[in-house]
Amino acid sequence: MFMRKLTSQVVCTYDDPVVETKQGKLRGLKIDSTYIFRGVKYADAERFHFPKSPASWEGVKEAITYGYCCPEINTPVPHDAYNVPHFWFPQDENCQYLNIWTQSIDKNAKKPVMIWMHGGGWFSGSSVEIYSYDGENLSIFGDVVVVSLNHRLNVLGFLDLSAYGDEYKYSANCGLADLVAALKWVNENIAAFGGDPDNVTIMGQSGGGAKVLSMLQTPAADGLFHRGIMQSGGPTGGAAKNEKEIALRMADLVLQFLDITPDRVKEIETVHYYDLAEAAAQALYVINEEYGTSYNWGPQTDMDYYYGHPLQTGFRKESLHIPLLAGSVLGEFSNNFDVFLKEGSKNAWSDAEKKELMDRWYGDKADAILEAFKEAYPKRNTADALYVDTRLRKGYLEFTKARAATEGAAPIYNWLFNLESPWMNGVMPWHNAEEPYMFHNAEYIETAYIPGVSERLQDQMAGAWVAFAKTGNPNHDLIPNWPAVTPDSVPTMMFDEECEVGIDHDKKLMELLPDAPKGFPGSKLMKAIFGVKPYKPYK
Amino acid sequence: MFMRKLTSQVVCTYDDPVVETKQGKLRGLKIDSTYIFRGVKYADAERFHFPKSPASWEGVKEAITYGYCCPEINTPVPHDAYNVPHFWFPQDENCQYLNIWTQSIDKNAKKPVMIWMHGGGWFSGSSVEIYSYDGENLSIFGDVVVVSLNHRLNVLGFLDLSAYGDEYKYSANCGLADLVAALKWVNENIAAFGGDPDNVTIMGQSGGGAKVLSMLQTPAADGLFHRGIMQSGGPTGGAAKNEKEIALRMADLVLQFLDITPDRVKEIETVHYYDLAEAAAQALYVINEEYGTSYNWGPQTDMDYYYGHPLQTGFRKESLHIPLLAGSVLGEFSNNFDVFLKEGSKNAWSDAEKKELMDRWYGDKADAILEAFKEAYPKRNTADALYVDTRLRKGYLEFTKARAATEGAAPIYNWLFNLESPWMNGVMPWHNAEEPYMFHNAEYIETAYIPGVSERLQDQMAGAWVAFAKTGNPNHDLIPNWPAVTPDSVPTMMFDEECEVGIDHDKKLMELLPDAPKGFPGSKLMKAIFGVKPYKPYK
Repeated sequence: MFMRKLTSQVVCTYDDPVVETKQGKLRGLKIDSTYIFRGVKYADAERFHFPKSPASWEGVKEAITYGYCCPEINTPVPHDAYNVPHFWFPQDENCQYLNIWTQSIDKNAKKPVMIWMHGGGWFSGSSVEIYSYDGENLSIFGDVVVVSLNHRLNVLGFLDLSAYGDEYKYSANCGLADLVAALKWVNENIAAFGGDPDNVTIMGQSGGGAKVLSMLQTPAADGLFHRGIMQSGGPTGGAAKNEKEIALRMADLVLQFLDITPDRVKEIETVHYYDLAEAAAQALYVINEEYGTSYNWGPQTDMDYYYGHPLQTGFRKESLHIPLLAGSVLGEFSNNFDVFLKEGSKNAWSDAEKKELMDRWYGDKADAILEAFKEAYPKRNTADALYVDTRLRKGYLEFTKARAATEGAAPIYNWLFNLESPWMNGVMPWHNAEEPYMFHNAEYIETAYIPGVSERLQDQMAGAWVAFAKTGNPNHDLIPNWPAVTPDSVPTMMFDEECEVGIDHDKKLMELLPDAPKGFPGSKLMKAIFGVKPYKPYK
Repeated sequence: MFMRKLTSQVVCTYDDPVVETKQGKLRGLKIDSTYIFRGVKYADAERFHFPKSPASWEGVKEAITYGYCCPEINTPVPHDAYNVPHFWFPQDENCQYLNIWTQSIDKNAKKPVMIWMHGGGWFSGSSVEIYSYDGENLSIFGDVVVVSLNHRLNVLGFLDLSAYGDEYKYSANCGLADLVAALKWVNENIAAFGGDPDNVTIMGQSGGGAKVLSMLQTPAADGLFHRGIMQSGGPTGGAAKNEKEIALRMADLVLQFLDITPDRVKEIETVHYYDLAEAAAQALYVINEEYGTSYNWGPQTDMDYYYGHPLQTGFRKESLHIPLLAGSVLGEFSNNFDVFLKEGSKNAWSDAEKKELMDRWYGDKADAILEAFKEAYPKRNTADALYVDTRLRKGYLEFTKARAATEGAAPIYNWLFNLESPWMNGVMPWHNAEEPYMFHNAEYIETAYIPGVSERLQDQMAGAWVAFAKTGNPNHDLIPNWPAVTPDSVPTMMFDEECEVGIDHDKKLMELLPDAPKGFPGSKLMKAIFGVKPYKPYK
């Protein structure tokens, strides 16, 4: 994906590099030290059915362009298209593709494998949506095999047609089953790409963090991965009490909008995709009107294929041995771009201006919050107190302690990404801001790169990710000692210009801060991200 | 667009870089020496109506992300997604956006302006569709202001609703009028970006070459540009005799498929875009069945707004003073990727194997063609004779001589891009292959970059483009003397590992070669590119 200045010839000939998979031979690319295989089919699937092994082929197949991404129903220019640079790719239902970056194609090399599950909730995004996802530099830096994948999303991945026949019993979890199919393909084939099928780390951000967590709760994934990294997604949440009712109503509405009666349900497998997408968008709109919620697509807790969020249903004992690395970003959605508290840079505001804003926002708690903020972050501009994320941070404090308190659970480590972006005279780190760093791509992203800082910090952060993938422990020589979470206390590695570990450093601050930044400020942004898509039914 | 390794901080603050346009202030970016403004609105338009000046605004508006691209009806993964790396961006009807790269924002700098009109026929593509289009390096190399633009395409740009009311008199040329609106915006505003409104070069490839030519034949564009560069597009062709009949039938069908009766024609301005796109795709399908053609969208020769192709209607005298640089690529669509003449690399075939293929393809002309090929290209592998483009090459030989023969016409220069790609052990240069070189981006494109060759050739080729933009003459110190075309003879600059000028060097070869590579080989590819899109009506 990177269009970087090349200094040597890219290799791609009739017979080099060629790797043999279970289904047939694939020809990829070699760029400097890295072998790259793009658009590898890991499964085939009929609409609303579980995935199957992909078809085999004769001869050598090209793996040099990405595969289709799952249709998003609606692809807008996101509010963060500049600070989180995006890459779009054509969309099609036939979307079970993965990409591989590796330093070796020796089947005995047995390098650790790191699989990326993309964000975008369970309804949007792709393995190539965000430039930071490019795996080449992480593969080089860590000498690891990086894999990223597309899978079914939204109506294609999660429509519950179970009321209409036994063959649709699991249709509400097709998108989840695609993830499992990808893990299975990796298990069967990754050795040929120099990877170790017995050392697989799954990692993901936002929706991808939730996907990682879901794999712990999905029996079909047992044994297919060995460590998990959750970034800014999934710590809390889970199913609404009336989840099943909503899901059934949703399917009912989709069929209605398509003019398909229950006896003709099979037709939903062959209606034109545009019609299906329209019906799904309208149904979602109606559901959110009817239930007054901001429901969106996702897997279904059926306690059969999927065991749901562990804070609701408990951690499955079969996956307790999986060590976890789980954390978030200091600003997340509450950062100060696209939110106009005041003209100009936050770093130029006077104390009086900051006090006025704090009072307006936090009311009579303002002074206490300011004191707690100074204690937690003594080196930061106090303006940042206006932008500290609570949604994910509070979630991770609860989640990591709950995991640590579960008998027999492997260690869980917590982190925060605190580096201020130099963009617009200084912006608090946003949702996605850690990705350029853990992927070791910080020098490629305009709003991430700080000369003299980024080079070190990406070694530290990607180094921790790689150490964790190799051993289940993120500690390495370039960072201070990082203890695991205990049932009572959360040590947090803070990735910043200087990395530091805080032990419950922001406990008091989190207790004082309101639960989620509803209303002023950030509401515009929060709505854009979490709210119902501004999709107007037109029929 | 380039995600290249940064070495210094990107500047984008509350007040830097800010430029004042006629409509208001824009804030862009500064990356090293280059100021970049993305997604600048140059016009607003109602559906099926001509564009108007964009709305004005108060304060400072961001110009840091691209603007919407025109919807393509159908966006596939193109057959050349690897060798012509693509970038996709969200699509919306509101697509009148341009991008600017410049080395100065001093309003007195008066640098030459080079405006890029994208390819994709008149029905697809965008200003950012192809990575090579990124203007930063050309701006740096030539110290010029580079502009690229989106405009209305396909049904949105060219539906002829003139039969349904005077307000739609010009709807068949909306997409063309957007191009004029962009030139007008540049004329009024480019000085603020360091550009010289009195020295504007328009350039484009494939459909973009046809767009450049169309501007010569559009009175509304008179005075808004001063030189033209046509690359692999537009030399011949033009309107079918029954163009108007087809256009009217097309509109009739679109309205029918939308269930809009003529008295309710106004409703076509507000139907949901998906419905319009479906109707347009179906209408195109039916038209091509009815007329047995491969009709696609494009401007209409009404001899009022648009004067049509000059080889049909003559060169307009008002634009005869515009010097032209016009040429094509040695392989174009007839190259040897995606076309299986034979297994393995063409460069490994024996003489006997080549002879067998030549005989199969060229029949009793094979020997004569081989001799003529050797005479035209003595240093090339004779296997290349199987892949020489005739479609565009013959067109440019005819077009350039016709222009040179027109009394009072400014000079026209011809070129060929002949550099073999190192990809797959050697591939003839394809349609789009010259773009990385004239944009000075060759080191960024995997299938373009040849260490030690690309660096020099892009200086030579981009150097000629820049020299032409500055003076109307492409000659410069790094290339051999390059004479203009005369009515009787075509001197051709051949850009290759070593640049050479041939005078009618391939005249005999072109006379011998069949008119267009129909059937074997290349038919699969030709169909994919020129044929009806494989779009099945589903209703």
